[in-house]
Amino acid sequence: MSLFTAGQEIYQLIEELYPICRSITGDGFRQSLGIMGKHIPLDVHEVPSGTGVLDWTVPREWNIREAYIKNSAGEKIVDFKNSNLHILNYSVPVNGKFRLDELKEHLFSLPDYKDWIPYRTSYYKENWGFCVTHNLLESLADDEYEVVIDSSLENGHLTYAEYLVPGETDDEFLISCHCCHPSLFNDNLSGMGLAIQLAKTLGQRKPRYTYRFLFIPGTIGSITWLAHNRETVSKIKHGLVVACVGDRGKLHYKKSRHGDREIDRAALHVLSNAGQEYGIIDFFPYGYDERQYSSPGFDLAVGCLSRTPHGKFPQYHTSADNLDFISAECLGDSYEKYLQIIDVIEGNKVYRNTHPYGEPQLGRRGLYAAFGGRKDSNAWEMAMLWILNYSDGQHSLLDIAEQSAISFTLIRECAEVLVQHELLVEILM
Amino acid sequence: MSLFTAGQEIYQLIEELYPICRSITGDGFRQSLGIMGKHIPLDVHEVPSGTGVLDWTVPREWNIREAYIKNSAGEKIVDFKNSNLHILNYSVPVNGKFRLDELKEHLFSLPDYKDWIPYRTSYYKENWGFCVTHNLLESLADDEYEVVIDSSLENGHLTYAEYLVPGETDDEFLISCHCCHPSLFNDNLSGMGLAIQLAKTLGQRKPRYTYRFLFIPGTIGSITWLAHNRETVSKIKHGLVVACVGDRGKLHYKKSRHGDREIDRAALHVLSNAGQEYGIIDFFPYGYDERQYSSPGFDLAVGCLSRTPHGKFPQYHTSADNLDFISAECLGDSYEKYLQIIDVIEGNKVYRNTHPYGEPQLGRRGLYAAFGGRKDSNAWEMAMLWILNYSDGQHSLLDIAEQSAISFTLIRECAEVLVQHELLVEILM
Amino acid sequence: MSLFTAGQEIYQLIEELYPICRSITGDGFRQSLGIMGKHIPLDVHEVPSGTGVLDWTVPREWNIREAYIKNSAGEKIVDFKNSNLHILNYSVPVNGKFRLDELKEHLFSLPDYKDWIPYRTSYYKENWGFCVTHNLLESLADDEYEVVIDSSLENGHLTYAEYLVPGETDDEFLISCHCCHPSLFNDNLSGMGLAIQLAKTLGQRKPRYTYRFLFIPGTIGSITWLAHNRETVSKIKHGLVVACVGDRGKLHYKKSRHGDREIDRAALHVLSNAGQEYGIIDFFPYGYDERQYSSPGFDLAVGCLSRTPHGKFPQYHTSADNLDFISAECLGDSYEKYLQIIDVIEGNKVYRNTHPYGEPQLGRRGLYAAFGGRKDSNAWEMAMLWILNYSDGQHSLLDIAEQSAISFTLIRECAEVLVQHELLVEILM
Repeated sequence: MSLFTAGQEIYQLIEELYPICRSITGDGFRQSLGIMGKHIPLDVHEVPSGTGVLDWTVPREWNIREAYIKNSAGEKIVDFKNSNLHILNYSVPVNGKFRLDELKEHLFSLPDYKDWIPYRTSYYKENWGFCVTHNLLESLADDEYEVVIDSSLENGHLTYAEYLVPGETDDEFLISCHCCHPSLFNDNLSGMGLAIQLAKTLGQRKPRYTYRFLFIPGTIGSITWLAHNRETVSKIKHGLVVACVGDRGKLHYKKSRHGDREIDRAALHVLSNAGQEYGIIDFFPYGYDERQYSSPGFDLAVGCLSRTPHGKFPQYHTSADNLDFISAECLGDSYEKYLQIIDVIEGNKVYRNTHPYGEPQLGRRGLYAAFGGRKDSNAWEMAMLWILNYSDGQHSLLDIAEQSAISFTLIRECAEVLVQHELLVEILM
Repeated sequence: MSLFTAGQEIYQLIEELYPICRSITGDGFRQSLGIMGKHIPLDVHEVPSGTGVLDWTVPREWNIREAYIKNSAGEKIVDFKNSNLHILNYSVPVNGKFRLDELKEHLFSLPDYKDWIPYRTSYYKENWGFCVTHNLLESLADDEYEVVIDSSLENGHLTYAEYLVPGETDDEFLISCHCCHPSLFNDNLSGMGLAIQLAKTLGQRKPRYTYRFLFIPGTIGSITWLAHNRETVSKIKHGLVVACVGDRGKLHYKKSRHGDREIDRAALHVLSNAGQEYGIIDFFPYGYDERQYSSPGFDLAVGCLSRTPHGKFPQYHTSADNLDFISAECLGDSYEKYLQIIDVIEGNKVYRNTHPYGEPQLGRRGLYAAFGGRKDSNAWEMAMLWILNYSDGQHSLLDIAEQSAISFTLIRECAEVLVQHELLVEILM
Repeated sequence: MSLFTAGQEIYQLIEELYPICRSITGDGFRQSLGIMGKHIPLDVHEVPSGTGVLDWTVPREWNIREAYIKNSAGEKIVDFKNSNLHILNYSVPVNGKFRLDELKEHLFSLPDYKDWIPYRTSYYKENWGFCVTHNLLESLADDEYEVVIDSSLENGHLTYAEYLVPGETDDEFLISCHCCHPSLFNDNLSGMGLAIQLAKTLGQRKPRYTYRFLFIPGTIGSITWLAHNRETVSKIKHGLVVACVGDRGKLHYKKSRHGDREIDRAALHVLSNAGQEYGIIDFFPYGYDERQYSSPGFDLAVGCLSRTPHGKFPQYHTSADNLDFISAECLGDSYEKYLQIIDVIEGNKVYRNTHPYGEPQLGRRGLYAAFGGRKDSNAWEMAMLWILNYSDGQHSLLDIAEQSAISFTLIRECAEVLVQHELLVEILM
């Protein structure tokens, strides 16, 4: 499938998911999993409110049906139906009349972006409120307003889903994606779509690693999953958090906690060989769910590949994170880089040169001729020599790619040819 | 006490010490200790001439009462009374008449700075001489000159003093300061004054480390002290040599012999966070008494914090190293940095996050609210997350400050709050 | 001997060697060894064709007597007598008539350098051919041509030579030089000449290391030597491949496989202290015989010091690599650097300060005075202090030279003085 097609498939899926009002619990989350589950068979988990998870507790489930503000003339001046960002996420039910000054304490806007609606939540502190454009806020007359929020905050469940692609080994590669944001395209419908596309692709392969996809609410979701998988989490050898992968900015890779893990080196190799500008960010204990995976007790090698990172674009957590803000092309480009990083990790094996004393005579094996017709025959010859020289049991193919400044793709292709000629054997680590 | 006040107190003390003619032995040194001893209770040691100390021998004691040169008209053209730099330090007694050409072999001047008097010594080779301005030297007529040096070089003692501030542990922090120079302000009256001020301040605390202050003659003093404390010197974990701390140049830190010790990292952290220009100098086996502390047999972690370093200002070892060359403000600034380095060393502990699996829920502990009113609430939140993530038993607070690029002061304050909330416990190393 | 004289001696030798048609086997190689053997006693080895050497087989021996192309008018338009580059090295015998289009398949030229003759070989694939200027190729009429190549490719021997300068220890320093190229001055008559000059010089010394000089055909020669010395090759502690040392370009050092071996550090020290521009090249598994010495099974610490490196000058492997392309002065300069690197390796010992507690008193030993008359007395004093401080059993003289940024020459001279004063004793590692 072409990358363009992949980008368009992602785009179509997230357009379908866009209108749903998601939160960290509730039917919006379930409904979204339902749509995603049409593409890959999701294993959905329901965890009851009140369940202790690590230092946290699963909160009550939130659902919302209706919410509006009417002025004294009976006009609905704010209506949840028009944008599910209008409601302060996790607002408690309200039905009453408020003077303007009372109402204003529950209104949130962006003075710097007067026609954007902000996205706000109050998960762990009971509150109610509306997010509105600053233009609307400024236009409000000194009036009495009727406020209706028909929501419920009750014992229920936290919902999340897993999808597992079994590999040759039990060692796992984690792909984690928060799915709790309402109608925001880049953060994180783009991640949800890309992860589904990746899952579809990997589901058709028999990879070396077992791939575990997590579709979870942010923070509480990863904490819940970690709490329930505490004994087996050490199977995870590599991981990526998928978020903000649809905007037009350049790609940014945020390193894992130790900064020098295989996932970090694979991501750097892919980005530095892509011929595009990119950014590298050292780990910091903030951002998305890598915060939880990288807490010192778990200390997993999980990085995060985004385009413009978390909080670094003005549209972040506003109604301007909309359809126009992302592009199918950028989604496709991000998807390609995820696949390439996975290819590096999959192919990063250690080999031993079976003829380590002097160079093996490549000519009589036809190994110069083999590539003679190729335009890059010189590159192939150099790649062969690098692999043979450094396949001493101390260097993986990625080590050799880094040291030789030859692309991992060429190094791996070439290693396969050398294996066929019995000049190389894999060392099982 | 304000830094300005501290700088002024230092300034006043060194003004009082200025007129005394000090040397590596003798009454000038004792008289100086007497003045400094009015501020802190000094433990004064007298070591007899001839005592073997490591590879050296304590020299005879030198004292001087009078010294002058008269021309044939009976005019005193050079008089020790006018400047104690005039006498070659450690000059043997002389009383005789000399032709100009004979006299000139015993006159020292600075052709490049014609109105400055140099400072010269001849501790270990018997000699006599006068240090004079080059203008005077050039004006000398072909005359016969009467030279009188009423000095004594006899068996006596080498004098030095210690001051100990007991700490919670026997591990020591050494503050060493040479006190053997006559009327030179920056080198090293500034160091003597700063060390006394630091001793007064620390004497009012109950610090974690035991602070040992040494007031010694240069080279032979540190060698004597090391010889007499050879068995216990390994208690010293950190050290600073105080010298040239009053001039208007930027601060320079000369690293300890290994260059990566805690004292080095603390000094770098303080200087790099001060918002002032500064210089870093790799260790070299020359300079002040760090040469002796860093000899390979002792190999102590002793750095040197100066303003313009040793020998790098033209006024160095001349009469131009005078009152105008230093300022109370710069003395106060240097003193502040010494205190800040000590604060880092004192506070640089290792903690363990008691909730290492996932992030602890800070909200329900009121830990977001705790800093909500502060302008730097974001910085506090980040500091908390950094400390919690890296308090894995492998990282000290200074490690965390370096890695997060957050000031040690904020990291330490924040760690104390987390200890109060039982999210952090100190690991006793 | 002055460097200029050394450069001229090298130049004269290679002028004498120039006309011979060398190959990887045959009488040209033997004849060259005969000339070189007039300067140093060479130990010549003959290895029969068909001998298995590592993954390779010693090829048949090639000799050539005559080769030309005549046009139908009977004019010799190409004649081996005029340049031994004209013959494709290892051409099989031919005697026949060819149409222009048939002939052209066996003609090699350089379209970008129309009056240069290329140098081409076909060692491991039977072929015949002529190397000609592109001008000649373009001028050829549609004619019938008579081709005669009076060569032989028969069982015989591969010839190589060794010269051993015994040292105090069995640990070896390898100097390897390929001698298989015909009339090419820089590559590698320059290397052959320089290696002979170096051998003559070292032969008059009693060095610390045993020096092994190899005069071999490229690739198959080092492989043959390695195959026959597989058990003792680990005696080689340092090595240099000598090639392209006569052109006017700046010196380039290609590091050994690990990049941080003593030979690498010595070469870097010499080049960085020479006050000339130079280049440093990381190891790559291509180039000259360092490829074989650095194969993972042997993994020897062998670098390569050239002027303009292998393949980086247009004259490389063409008739333009002639007398004008090199200079006696550059040969002398390269020779000097080889000697200096050897001097560093020879003198790079580890000492122990016998007075490690405090500084030893240099004054009473006359060690300040010792250098008092020298212009560089300051440098000597600093060198003494550096050596005494770092001679703690952990640092060699080269470590100290690197750390102090003082030249190794001064450090070593100074160490010898300190040994005489019993302040330093050698540690036998």
